[in-house]
Parts: sequence; C-alpha cells; structure tokens
Amino acid sequence: MVNLQQQLQAALLQQLQHYPAGAARLVLAYSGGLDSQVLLDLLAPLCQELAIPLTAVHVHHGLNGQADNWAAFCQAQCQQRQVDFSLRYVKLTQLSNIEQQARTARYQALAEFVNTPHTLLLTAHHADDQLETVLLALKRGAGLTGLAAMPTVRAFAAGKLVRLLLGISRRQLFDYATSEQLTWLEDDSNQNIDFDRNFLRQQVTPTLKQRWPAILQTVSRSAQHLQHAAELADYYTEQALAQCLDASRLNLQQLSLLHPLQRDLVLRRWLALAGLNPETQWLTTLKQEVIYARQDAAPQLQLGQLQIRRYQHWLYCLAEVPERVTAKETILVVGQNLQLTSGLGRLCWHSEPMADALPVARDMPEFTLAFGLLSSRFKPAGRPAKPLKQWFKLWQVPPWQRARVPLLFQAGQLQVVAGYASAFAPSQADVWLSWQPA
Amino acid sequence: MVNLQQQLQAALLQQLQHYPAGAARLVLAYSGGLDSQVLLDLLAPLCQELAIPLTAVHVHHGLNGQADNWAAFCQAQCQQRQVDFSLRYVKLTQLSNIEQQARTARYQALAEFVNTPHTLLLTAHHADDQLETVLLALKRGAGLTGLAAMPTVRAFAAGKLVRLLLGISRRQLFDYATSEQLTWLEDDSNQNIDFDRNFLRQQVTPTLKQRWPAILQTVSRSAQHLQHAAELADYYTEQALAQCLDASRLNLQQLSLLHPLQRDLVLRRWLALAGLNPETQWLTTLKQEVIYARQDAAPQLQLGQLQIRRYQHWLYCLAEVPERVTAKETILVVGQNLQLTSGLGRLCWHSEPMADALPVARDMPEFTLAFGLLSSRFKPAGRPAKPLKQWFKLWQVPPWQRARVPLLFQAGQLQVVAGYASAFAPSQADVWLSWQPA
Repeated sequence: MVNLQQQLQAALLQQLQHYPAGAARLVLAYSGGLDSQVLLDLLAPLCQELAIPLTAVHVHHGLNGQADNWAAFCQAQCQQRQVDFSLRYVKLTQLSNIEQQARTARYQALAEFVNTPHTLLLTAHHADDQLETVLLALKRGAGLTGLAAMPTVRAFAAGKLVRLLLGISRRQLFDYATSEQLTWLEDDSNQNIDFDRNFLRQQVTPTLKQRWPAILQTVSRSAQHLQHAAELADYYTEQALAQCLDASRLNLQQLSLLHPLQRDLVLRRWLALAGLNPETQWLTTLKQEVIYARQDAAPQLQLGQLQIRRYQHWLYCLAEVPERVTAKETILVVGQNLQLTSGLGRLCWHSEPMADALPVARDMPEFTLAFGLLSSRFKPAGRPAKPLKQWFKLWQVPPWQRARVPLLFQAGQLQVVAGYASAFAPSQADVWLSWQPA
Repeated sequence: MVNLQQQLQAALLQQLQHYPAGAARLVLAYSGGLDSQVLLDLLAPLCQELAIPLTAVHVHHGLNGQADNWAAFCQAQCQQRQVDFSLRYVKLTQLSNIEQQARTARYQALAEFVNTPHTLLLTAHHADDQLETVLLALKRGAGLTGLAAMPTVRAFAAGKLVRLLLGISRRQLFDYATSEQLTWLEDDSNQNIDFDRNFLRQQVTPTLKQRWPAILQTVSRSAQHLQHAAELADYYTEQALAQCLDASRLNLQQLSLLHPLQRDLVLRRWLALAGLNPETQWLTTLKQEVIYARQDAAPQLQLGQLQIRRYQHWLYCLAEVPERVTAKETILVVGQNLQLTSGLGRLCWHSEPMADALPVARDMPEFTLAFGLLSSRFKPAGRPAKPLKQWFKLWQVPPWQRARVPLLFQAGQLQVVAGYASAFAPSQADVWLSWQPA
C-alpha cells in the first residue's frame, strides 16, 4: 500500500505541474487540529526537499478560552519544523450563527495571504469531510452545485484553494498521527452535536462506514461526477446568457429558443449579475407576470431595491426607478462637451466619425438642449418625418427611458436625438456627437 | 392541513390533464403491503367518482411460503372495493441476487398491462423510499442520473410510470392506514438488514428524520434539482451527438469543438447506441490510444464483441471484423437487381435518378462484378483517371471497407464503383444503380 507521504507528494506534484518551476508558493490553513497537524507534518519535509516556500497561517478567533494557548502551540510546532508561521486575529461581531461567521472571517484572513496567481491555499479537508458535506447539502435540499460538494481545486482570492487530502480518510490521518507520535489540539466544540456536522460525525457516518467500508470513495466519486456535470451546465448557461444579453438587457426572443430548463438558469444567471438570488416562487411570478405577460403590456416586478421591467421582447433590470427629467432648457455649444445632471451621462464631441456618434453640421454654433418633448416632429436624414414618440417606438426605446434622452433643437426644429438618430446626413457632418452613459 | 385523499386527488388530476378526457386508464402495482394498500384504498373511491378505469395487478413471486395467502388477501381487498384485479405468476430462475431479479420480473409482468400510450402504471413509492434511493445511489458512487433518484413520471412500456405518493412520508401512510383500520401484508423479508435498503430504513434514516424533520422534503427537492440538471444535460448531449454523427460513424473534428466534458458524454452516448457501457478507464484508453493517436495511425480497440476503429477523423464501431470478400467474379445484368453474399447488401436498378444512385448507360447488357481490385485505374465522369486506391483515400473510405465495395467492369475497364462514383455522366444515363446495405 502506498503510504500517506507518497500519496500527498503525488497529489501535490499533480497540482504543481500547472505552474512554472519554482513559481508556486503554499499557504497552509493551520488550526493545529488533527487534520491540519498531519498536513503540516507531511508538508514540512516535502517542501524543504522540493524547495517550495510554505507559510502556515493560524487564525485566532478568540472564541475559546484556550485560543492563546492554541496559537502558541501552533507557533511551536512550526518552529520545530522550520516552517514560516503567521498568526492572524479576527473579531466576531454577532452572537448568532457563530460557526458560519467564524468560517467567513477565517477565509477572509486567509485570503490576504493568497495574493498572487501562484499562491495555493492548502486546507486539510479529507474524505470524511466530503461525505459530511454531501449529507449536509441533502439536508439543505441543495441543487447540483451544492451536492457537488468540495472540489479538489477552486479559484480563491488571487490564487487557488487546493484540498490535497480529499482522497484520504480521517482514520488514515489518525493512524499516521498516532504512529508518528504527533500531538494536536482538540477543540471541545467538535463534540457539540448542536452543530449539524458534529451530529453526522457522531451519529450517522460511523454506521454508514461500518456497513459500507467503501462509502468514502463512492461518495467522492459521486461528488466528482456532479462537479463535472455542474461545470458543463455552467458552460452552457454562460453560452446561452451571452446569446441573450444585449448590453445589460435580456432578449426574450433569444431566451424562448432555449430549452425551458436552460431558460430558468439563464434568468438566474442574469439576475445574479445584478446581485439577485431569488426564490423559485419569485422566478415563477417573474415568468408569469412579466415575461409571459400580454405582448402589449408593460409589466414590472420589484425585488429588493431592483425593478425588473419588460418592454417588447426585452427584459430590463433597473437599479432604481428612473427619474423623470424636468424639461428645463440648456444650451449645448458645438465642440464643448457637456456633463449632464440626474445620472444622464455626458455629451461628447468628436472631430472624426466613430461608433455610436452621430453626424452634426456646424452651421450654427449651438443647440438648445431639452428633454421629454415627445410630440416634436423629427426627420432623421433620409427618413420621413414622424412624431418623436413614433420613432422611439420603432427604435424600441423603453417608455421609462424616453424622457431621459437628450434632444437637440435649432430654431425650434429637432435636429439630433442623442444616441439614436440625427437629421444631418453623414456627408453634411463637420463634427460627431456621442452620448456616453454616466 | 390538506388530507391524504385531497393530496392524492390533486396529484392524480395533475397527471390526467396530459390526457384527453376519459382516455387514461390506471394500473396499480399492488403488493398488499402498507404503501400499495393505502394507495388502493385512496384510489378506489376516487376512480369510481371520476370514472377512470383501474386495475390492480398483484405479482406472485413464489418466494415466500405465504405467497398464495397474500394473493388471496389482495384479491379479497379488491373485491371489497369493486376494483378489477389481476394476478400474475413469475418464476425466478437464479438463486443469486434475488431482490434485483424479483424486481425485474415484477416490472416485466406489469409492463404487459401498460400496453397503450394512455395507460399509467401507479407505484406506491413515497418520500422515505426516495431518501433511501438517494443514499443508495451515494453508496454506489452514482453520477447525475442515479443521484436524481426516482422521478414522479417516466416513460414505461407503452405508457408511463407515475409515483403519486412521492411527496408523502411513510409515517403519513401508516397514520392513514391506522385511522382507516386498514389491514395489510407484512413481508418479513423487510426486516432483513442483509438488504441495504432495510439497513438504511432501520439504522440510518430514523436518526436523520429525528434530527431534521424536514429531511424528506429537502432530499426530494435535491433529487428534483438533479432531475432537471440531468434532463438538460441529456438534451445537450443528444444535440451534440447529432452534430457529430454521420450514419453510424462519429466525426472527431466535430467532437473536438465540444467542451471536453461534453465530449466524454457524447462518446458514452455513441457507444451506448451499440449497447456498450464501458468503465471510465476504458474510455480513457479509447481517447489516448485511438482518438488522439497519430493522424496517420490506424488505431483500434476491442470491447466485448465490438471493435472501435479510427480512420482519418472518423470513429467507427464495428460489430465484427469485416470479412474480406474473395475476388471471384459474377455477372451483373443491367436491370436485374442482385442480392450479394457476405452481408454486402443489394445492388438495385432504378429507371429514374434518385439519391445515392449512380448514372449508368445501357450500352452493353451486363457488367462483370468484382471486389478488391484496388490497383484498377478509374476515371469518374468529369474527373481525371487514378488508381482506385487513390480515389478511396480521397473519398475517405476506411481501409477495411475498400475490398467490400462492388466494382463494375466492362471490357476490362472499371466503370462503376458502387455507392461512390460512376464513369458515366448523368447526361449519358439510361438507368441508375444504388447499393443498399444489408
């Protein structure tokens, strides 16, 4: 049988092959408990032999009266092995959900050490942790990503988080620690079965492992199958989203071409871009009341601070209800850029044609700038004259944006609708005008 | 709280809305145990009220000394409720893996009753069964499809298999049976924890349900998430396979355009078409030694009776090593179809042009038919003359198929290469020749 040193070395070398020789550096998340103590003990000689920089980081949560002693123990263990040691203090502020809070604070502290693309954070998660993680995901009713549990490698801060012991059982770690006469810290909160993970560890997984000695391997295999499925599903969802996305709005015609189950995933991904992670029920409401509303309806739905609105076959996610611009008039001098108020962005002049800039003739030195005059007649170059309102409809400008479009008049005549069309033909142009968002 | 009758009625009506009014008929898989006894008791009045035909089918395995008594009990229960009853006897032949064998035989017997698209087989699987199924899938190290466990509805025989109780716990069924003073059969093999499912039921799931009362709902939700993920993954795999498939061969250039994880799934689906379900290790070998072999190699790999061969960028799955055809000569009379030996199919004459048929002039009444004369010079209409060997290379005909292509000579001159090209131009054609596979 291959021993633990050899298994760890193989797992480490497999990860290091993705980095230029000598470039990688390792950061060990080191609590001093059995798992990370064994990992430290295995890594120290290996890193010395391979000349890989290794830093052990101990996070002091201040949750336990023993915390100072634990930190001292960890420092001494590293010193013995000539391993760089860093101690970080974190303060937990709320009294509720301590476990989750400590975890978040710990990873934040560790993230500071993972500040280059070539830094690997090593955690001591092992096969028993993986089994517990899968069972906890079932307890939450998790989907594909949650049930896929912990991957061996994932992106973390500027580098990666790597779990070299995921194929090793807690039993193997314990046997190694015993035979090597290691000492380690016992956190008495590990005995507290108020924590779901400890409950599983004490009352469920021993029964499973006794009955099915291969359960750790099979559950790892299942998790890996789901990781692959999740990776592929993400790839298709990103592709599908790219097909549906136009700037920040979603093309519902494109969306309808997708498999119905893919549509939901694309909607979720699109909402996630705005920081939203809605309940399934809310998504159903969004589909029924907004996406599949009557073609001529102008439906909308609120979620937190955000508003989802549909106009024609486009779905918009608005951070706030757009302010109506009051129709006070301003002067726009040709050639002088103008910063607009009310988050309306900037009008910029260009001496050469460019994408999204409209042609303007310099016959007169200035325009009157106005907003919201939707009944004005407008004749884009080479097109017939129509009320602006009709042009906006043709251009599929959502109603809530129409009164926010800068309108440029000369002698009472609408000459330029910023961002959309100009009465001047390109051949008449002396300058070009672009409307740049805030 | 909604009672069990109402829940069942809602679940049944939801299924029936997919069928024309009055068209659906139900078949109950009825063992007489607690679960199916409750389902019978709930269905009987409901089907009478809704005028839906219902047949209860009891399968007699002959495994238990009580089997005759059980059948009699079931018949009496149905009679009491005026429900059609059918008894089917199955014989188990092997002594090993009895549980799996009984299950297969049972579903085979039930399939005979599901002989129309409007027939729904109802089984009494409930939420506890679903939890056990998920845990058993983890024990096997199953992938996405296995972990997705039991869907509410799936195709079965000519109709569907529907699980109306999947949202109901065993406890709810027991409480109903008790309060309605039902009697039911206890199969003492359910106590035998040699069966993994019984082990879970007695030693694992009670602990989980006691700690997490919502576990049945959350695991159902997880399973449903995975069912959706599996359905979408299948959809993409079918699409990707269709892009890569040409007749029965696989286009490796197309395959290489797919996401690497999608490639593996397409390969698996393609191999499944030939009845293959290889180990991951074998698939790795296939990729390394065949698919990614040198461009000019002619690699092959055996799996059971089948042989996977690559030629250029095509992958072939051959049921048997193609027999070399001996080059004995035959006469092919123009206008007379000819059945070839050695599984070579049929040469057929047509009086009109059609897809895959080659033009032939009726200058002479017959051709000499030969095989394997690869050095013959051949001049397809409008193309230069080259040795046949070179044409086969250009046409990307795999080497093992070349000696099996019927060659038509006249006066020592190769005139038609069946299925590929003719020396006659379409304008010269009096008849058309097609080569149809066996």
